[in-house]
Amino acid sequence: MTAADRTAAPTFSAAVDAAPRDFAARHLGSDEPAAATMLDTLGYGSLAELIDDAVPPSIRQQGPLELPEALTEDEALAALRGYAGRNTVMTQMIGQGFHGTHTPSVILRNVLQDPAWYTAYTPYQPEISQGRLEALLNFQTMVADLTGLDLANASLLDESSAVAEAILLMRRANKKHAAGRLVLDADSWPQTREVVAGRAEALGLAVDVVDLAAEGLPDGELCGVVLQQPGDSGAVVDHRALIAEAKERGAMVAVAADLLACTLLTPPGEQGADIAIGSTQRFGVPLFFGGPHAAYMAVRSGLQRQLPGRLVGVSHDAEGRPAYRLSLQTREQHIRREKATSNICTAQALLAVAAGLYGVYHGPEGLRAIAERVHGQARTLAAVLAEAGFRLVGESFFDTVQLRMDSAEAARLVAAAEDLRINLRRVDQQTVGITVDETTTDEQLGRVLIAARAAKAEDAAAAALAGVELSGEHAFAAELARTSEYMTHPIFHTVRSETRMMRYLRRLGDRDLALDRTMIPLGSCTMKLNAATEMEAISWPEFAAIHPFAPTHQTAGWRALIADLESRLQAVTGYAQVSLQPNAGSQGEYAGLLAIRRHHLANGETDRDICLIPASAHGTNASSAVLAGLQVVVVDTADDGTVSMEALRRTIAAHPGRIAAIMLTYPSTHGVFEPEVGEVCAAVHEAGGQVYIDGANLNALLGVAKPGEFGGDVSHLNLHKTFCIPHGGGGPGVGPVAVAEHLVEHLPTTRVGASDGVRGDDVDHSAERLAESARGGAPVTSTPYGSAGVLPISWAYLAMMGAEGLTQATGHALLTANYLSARLADHFPTLYTGESADGRPGLVAHECILDLRELTKASGVTAEDVCKRLIDFGIHAPTLAFPVNGTLMVEPTESEDLEEIDRFIEAMIAVHGEIQEVIDGEIPIEESPLRHAPHPAAVVVSDDWDRVYGREQAAFPVPGLRQDKYFAPVSRIDGAHGDRNLVCSCPPPEAFEVD
Amino acid sequence: MTAADRTAAPTFSAAVDAAPRDFAARHLGSDEPAAATMLDTLGYGSLAELIDDAVPPSIRQQGPLELPEALTEDEALAALRGYAGRNTVMTQMIGQGFHGTHTPSVILRNVLQDPAWYTAYTPYQPEISQGRLEALLNFQTMVADLTGLDLANASLLDESSAVAEAILLMRRANKKHAAGRLVLDADSWPQTREVVAGRAEALGLAVDVVDLAAEGLPDGELCGVVLQQPGDSGAVVDHRALIAEAKERGAMVAVAADLLACTLLTPPGEQGADIAIGSTQRFGVPLFFGGPHAAYMAVRSGLQRQLPGRLVGVSHDAEGRPAYRLSLQTREQHIRREKATSNICTAQALLAVAAGLYGVYHGPEGLRAIAERVHGQARTLAAVLAEAGFRLVGESFFDTVQLRMDSAEAARLVAAAEDLRINLRRVDQQTVGITVDETTTDEQLGRVLIAARAAKAEDAAAAALAGVELSGEHAFAAELARTSEYMTHPIFHTVRSETRMMRYLRRLGDRDLALDRTMIPLGSCTMKLNAATEMEAISWPEFAAIHPFAPTHQTAGWRALIADLESRLQAVTGYAQVSLQPNAGSQGEYAGLLAIRRHHLANGETDRDICLIPASAHGTNASSAVLAGLQVVVVDTADDGTVSMEALRRTIAAHPGRIAAIMLTYPSTHGVFEPEVGEVCAAVHEAGGQVYIDGANLNALLGVAKPGEFGGDVSHLNLHKTFCIPHGGGGPGVGPVAVAEHLVEHLPTTRVGASDGVRGDDVDHSAERLAESARGGAPVTSTPYGSAGVLPISWAYLAMMGAEGLTQATGHALLTANYLSARLADHFPTLYTGESADGRPGLVAHECILDLRELTKASGVTAEDVCKRLIDFGIHAPTLAFPVNGTLMVEPTESEDLEEIDRFIEAMIAVHGEIQEVIDGEIPIEESPLRHAPHPAAVVVSDDWDRVYGREQAAFPVPGLRQDKYFAPVSRIDGAHGDRNLVCSCPPPEAFEVD
Repeated sequence: MTAADRTAAPTFSAAVDAAPRDFAARHLGSDEPAAATMLDTLGYGSLAELIDDAVPPSIRQQGPLELPEALTEDEALAALRGYAGRNTVMTQMIGQGFHGTHTPSVILRNVLQDPAWYTAYTPYQPEISQGRLEALLNFQTMVADLTGLDLANASLLDESSAVAEAILLMRRANKKHAAGRLVLDADSWPQTREVVAGRAEALGLAVDVVDLAAEGLPDGELCGVVLQQPGDSGAVVDHRALIAEAKERGAMVAVAADLLACTLLTPPGEQGADIAIGSTQRFGVPLFFGGPHAAYMAVRSGLQRQLPGRLVGVSHDAEGRPAYRLSLQTREQHIRREKATSNICTAQALLAVAAGLYGVYHGPEGLRAIAERVHGQARTLAAVLAEAGFRLVGESFFDTVQLRMDSAEAARLVAAAEDLRINLRRVDQQTVGITVDETTTDEQLGRVLIAARAAKAEDAAAAALAGVELSGEHAFAAELARTSEYMTHPIFHTVRSETRMMRYLRRLGDRDLALDRTMIPLGSCTMKLNAATEMEAISWPEFAAIHPFAPTHQTAGWRALIADLESRLQAVTGYAQVSLQPNAGSQGEYAGLLAIRRHHLANGETDRDICLIPASAHGTNASSAVLAGLQVVVVDTADDGTVSMEALRRTIAAHPGRIAAIMLTYPSTHGVFEPEVGEVCAAVHEAGGQVYIDGANLNALLGVAKPGEFGGDVSHLNLHKTFCIPHGGGGPGVGPVAVAEHLVEHLPTTRVGASDGVRGDDVDHSAERLAESARGGAPVTSTPYGSAGVLPISWAYLAMMGAEGLTQATGHALLTANYLSARLADHFPTLYTGESADGRPGLVAHECILDLRELTKASGVTAEDVCKRLIDFGIHAPTLAFPVNGTLMVEPTESEDLEEIDRFIEAMIAVHGEIQEVIDGEIPIEESPLRHAPHPAAVVVSDDWDRVYGREQAAFPVPGLRQDKYFAPVSRIDGAHGDRNLVCSCPPPEAFEVD
Repeated sequence: MTAADRTAAPTFSAAVDAAPRDFAARHLGSDEPAAATMLDTLGYGSLAELIDDAVPPSIRQQGPLELPEALTEDEALAALRGYAGRNTVMTQMIGQGFHGTHTPSVILRNVLQDPAWYTAYTPYQPEISQGRLEALLNFQTMVADLTGLDLANASLLDESSAVAEAILLMRRANKKHAAGRLVLDADSWPQTREVVAGRAEALGLAVDVVDLAAEGLPDGELCGVVLQQPGDSGAVVDHRALIAEAKERGAMVAVAADLLACTLLTPPGEQGADIAIGSTQRFGVPLFFGGPHAAYMAVRSGLQRQLPGRLVGVSHDAEGRPAYRLSLQTREQHIRREKATSNICTAQALLAVAAGLYGVYHGPEGLRAIAERVHGQARTLAAVLAEAGFRLVGESFFDTVQLRMDSAEAARLVAAAEDLRINLRRVDQQTVGITVDETTTDEQLGRVLIAARAAKAEDAAAAALAGVELSGEHAFAAELARTSEYMTHPIFHTVRSETRMMRYLRRLGDRDLALDRTMIPLGSCTMKLNAATEMEAISWPEFAAIHPFAPTHQTAGWRALIADLESRLQAVTGYAQVSLQPNAGSQGEYAGLLAIRRHHLANGETDRDICLIPASAHGTNASSAVLAGLQVVVVDTADDGTVSMEALRRTIAAHPGRIAAIMLTYPSTHGVFEPEVGEVCAAVHEAGGQVYIDGANLNALLGVAKPGEFGGDVSHLNLHKTFCIPHGGGGPGVGPVAVAEHLVEHLPTTRVGASDGVRGDDVDHSAERLAESARGGAPVTSTPYGSAGVLPISWAYLAMMGAEGLTQATGHALLTANYLSARLADHFPTLYTGESADGRPGLVAHECILDLRELTKASGVTAEDVCKRLIDFGIHAPTLAFPVNGTLMVEPTESEDLEEIDRFIEAMIAVHGEIQEVIDGEIPIEESPLRHAPHPAAVVVSDDWDRVYGREQAAFPVPGLRQDKYFAPVSRIDGAHGDRNLVCSCPPPEAFEVD
């Protein structure tokens, strides 16, 4: 960049280097003097200069971001209170898979509002994740027990996409009948039918929706059948005969089951199902306007290796003591590109933790008591309404009573209830649904009856609750009553008092390392500050207690906030439209590729089915492409890590007329700004393809370059990376998809939307909603806005940073990565950098890949050894072996302060010293602290110490550790053993006993 | 108790043993099986039986408590939302010592809402309190720097009582002129004038209120002078000449100073003052309807040993490294009865921590910027209003502009502002005050101007803010501008980013042991669960953002909640009235004794000035009596710990007609229900005295016996003990005073109350308020309801427990104490018990005194050694050496579960084993782990281990500690060294460097 170029944007450059104010000054780790120190190390006089050298001029955006002026923290909270005030908190009796629930305050405060839990990363480093792994194992054990199946994962993104995953699993696993029919019961949630239809269509699969209760199983070869219990209609059906028939005919069977109902009903596993899926929302997780909520999948023994999502298992550590870890990880971060079967990566970890802890706190008898109470209230309601002359849709139910009446009466009923601050479900013109949940009071039931009376416009319905005499035990067949035990493990029987729960949560949290104690410099994961002000609003009832299908006029605040967030995301990315529906990056990728695919089909280009993916791409890219019905073709990268133009041209030429898209990550996963990105985009566009730019590395771009301007047609963003939604120990995530104008019509729709019929209008509202929407793509999640509940976090971040703050954040992200790379250059060279100039080092983007391969060759010390040894320093490991084996990818982010970055550098240099000792033959690798790392307290305090190195070297390799030392609770964990001997539920307490 | 007695109250007994439901089941540590195990150990079949044996029939209440039905956690939150909704959140520009402020979200979430901080106890065990001690040392350093004095305490209860403490300090310290006049400047807060007048009257002191600016110092001998900067009128005055004159005449000088103003103004110390006092509320602590807020006191060198309240100092540990502790503790828990000078015990620790952290987060330049902004806005306002024709009361000010006008116009101005959602201060009929704070926006100033225009009823005031040209730098004399540096310690310069702050808070919190990790079985302190639901509401703006002097109609919710809390407290104690004004137990004692004193005076019994205090009483009892103008006479206790009736009769006889009161604690501080309590009360009543029953041990009584019924005329309660307000590491506390009917008129008044004049009524509202109040006692704190902000906690506890829950809690408190006492009987005998019967052990009340004296004699191992050794087990020590030297008093409370109690018992038995080894000569005491305890990680992991016992014995004396081990951050601290070498501000970082 020439001096003339620089003076062209003087205001902009000055803004980058101006002292950050208000919130931005708190978000950035470094103040001006610290930034100056880092710039000085790199030989730069200003941040603007550094950016100018690091970012290719060809992609730079012109002028600053166009965003409203930054708000202070207090102004942001006031604005959020304004949005919240425009939502209406009602008693939510809509049901349809979403229920009112009491989040125990002790869990809310000590998990959902505690940074020790919510700022943690996915537990890929199990030694520093034993607390949350135990919590997730509780979840798995609870789900497996309740569904009557052998093991469960932790977790899936939402119930509807979990059903889609179950269908794909059956197709994969039932090899003998893979060509058979896939059947979905008609009594499934409408949102599930929509999501499944979309997923199937993309893959060219046929899924038949059949009214199985009325028509029975269809003829012909069967591959898989999906049932729901209770059904969309509320019906509780004995599925045993149907399941037996299906299995006899070689099919597999999945049941979408309500976990609370499973405490009373013969569970899916005992009815013969192979698979159960569903939502765990009603186990203490707020409605959140639709999400995030953990979905689950449980399977019978034999299917565990087919299970999508994460699976926590038990292995042992180097001392032979039980230790938890993620099992079968190969299915996830290391998804094999071309053979991808599921693109699930992010899970709903934090929500699964909460649901599992809800189970721990209530125990089986508590859950059953809640279920009995809910069921009793539903029966009472049914009895009174029947006596009052209402026609019940069915007599066998758990928590939902559906009534049939004429359309005018239905409209009156729903409207009268709303006037009494209760939302009912207008199922269709003649049907109204009423669903009871844990929070329902008799007073609320009384109001429902008042509304019913008003709807009848006569006194016939004036029956009182008190007078009802119920006959029989339950409103379902006696032989459906559950008789088996569940949740028999002691953990579900010992934590009943709040004091004990609080201490259990503290103990688990203390075992883990999260952002509240250490930087988590994970390349490509952008573990930055999740500010307390950003987190504040999500627990407010006006956001958290809103049902996803509440009438539109009750959710004006949510919609306004979401619209504003969309427009801000459009402003920073340069795209025409954003959809916030995808609830994970993988879902965003899928939705984006689907838009591309639909675009080509709409243009009649049915042959365009090839998705080009560079060798260095994220693992999920390929699997998302497969799910979108595309074929993956890998493009080689050159030695320097960049996409090889030559290979690209060759590949394009080899598939004339078939190129649908290329998926790029920018800056590349090699951590550099590739200057050729414009050329790559042009070549693909020229070949008729679309350019998908993975937004994983957007933290290097905001305010500096817009993917929608420098060549992208689509991107997904990760709000849980760049936009401050905390990782929650592996979820929630939000992966909005952003597209250029020509793709807007193919963004995901929201076909199953608000129950707007409640105000009594007589139109077909589902058709109305379709017409309303300019977008035509299939929905990818259960609800219109996916993980809506956490969107205030990203909104607050954008609102408080403003254009200047965001640009400064990008500058600081580049600065910290380059500083760290330069400071470690003599010990751990960075694998890829841009060209160096003026005697200054070649620059990286916002992360750098430290190359350990030479050291490994010389010493035998692996990159994994280094990761484990860093634990002894109280530091979370960088990204291991991605995108290049034998390396560590480090992303410090803009939120880390110089002192913490220097602490990391100090640790790495100390580790290098230990490697050098191995190289120098002073200590064999097998006996070095590197191989024995991490060192728990029980090891270094042992009376028998026979290591060749000292205890102090083990525990306090640098002096700063002496006072505030984190000890890993376990030694290094044997991963292979865990995968060979898969144990995925809580081990008995005796397993932990000291010998 | 006979069988007939038992059947007399069958419902009641059954209720005690019924399975607790809803919240009570969460509050109690033990469920039915666990309770049965404990009862079985004691030989009882039911809790009712145990209570019947433990509690003397003579004091038992008849029938259950009369309280509304218990609410569930959700119902309680809904009810609190109802109260909150009846308060009006306004822009608060009343000032008068209370200001809007931004609590940094990172401090709110990670301190005020984090149980690691708020459930901690007072740091009497400094080794497990290094985190909060550092935070308090930050506070002291900041206060000393800002006031320009040498050292500061941490902290006092409220500004007005702090002024009273300053006056008493001057009288104590200025021995030469102790008989001289005490002068309080007339330009002090009205609430300060009231509180000082009350305190002075009680002691028979004269404090002259003089308009010093107008009249100068009065003639005659001077002892002490108190000034205020800025004054009540907002005036900023150069006090140097007046201070110089006062000191020349031998007086001491104290200045009540606003800390924010101190960043701009020459501080009190530099103006020559000996003492500064004030509130730190505006440093990030919400208004809270008046409290809790930390007041401060700073003094020049030489006065440190006179300082009331807590003083954190620096000493060193056994390894010679710096370590923090409370200095000069003799002045506090060990207050010498007869020589008491101050009764301060509870401080506002948590609020002082928050204010100190606010200073850390903003640093000196941040604080100065806030002050400049506040001052600039005040100047702008003054300029515009002056230009618009308003008459300013003064031209020299910091943040407050006072205007003088006719009464009708003043009424219109205040009313117009209120209509625009701004509260101004109606100082008197002709004066309106407007105070600017950190949260004030230009938009709000604009609204003030609109109101001003409306008040003038003409267009003259239509001046815009924008047009104002300010001349000069400040609205006070240039020579008053501060030139000295402050807050130069690195801690005030290094924590600027939120990430760093979050980690600093986590690090400090991790150094400490609080209820979230261990039981804190402190006898007489009742460290029970502080439930998350109880804590929830206090941060809601509708409670937290209300000014204590807001108009009555804006605070209907607060008043209704307080009235309901009062009536519940009356119901459980059997008293006629309760005042919630006292903001600590000591203040409650003082207010209660004052009521007694006033009662006697009103009856013409001026000679009744003797307060009988048993030898076993709490330390503060005696000092409160002295402050209430009573003479203390100690009554001996018998060998068994009970009040000796013989000694009592003798003492009464020796002082005919002079007995004012007796102060009893019941159950006694010896941990037993003394059956003679009725006799004691009768004897005192017979002698014309009143009976004061200290409510410290009320946790053994609720639902079982009411002090107001079995002999008490007055009690103070500790809401921070029995009623679940967390201890906050040494405050806040709430110490309501409860009285029988004949004392109601002597409860504290609220003379300085709401600014009700704002609605434009023309009456003298201060007189009106006086007439309104049926109570005649002097106010004891700055605001009508003391620490109102935390009252929702106790309200929620009472509302959720209900009559049955509270009674069960009492039963469980007795059960756990007796179980623990019985289980440890063979190792550590309990010193005092009731009589045993039926071969079952003699019973204690809710706590037991473990007698170590024989073991100490045989082994040299002290009770303190045991306390320190318990730290190695991760257990907080019991109460040491109170009420009997050489003992430990243990109070497990009802919230501890059996497993935790058994963990304590296991630890104590292990400790006994170590003592036995010393007795057996196997290990000399000086070399035993007991004397070397606690053992930090740095010690047990040292490469040089030369102890005669093993590392594992040091760190893991029982097996359960291996995985989740708490290591004390320091070794045993040398207390004597710290007192000899008093260092009470932050030591330089180099002091902590590793050699």
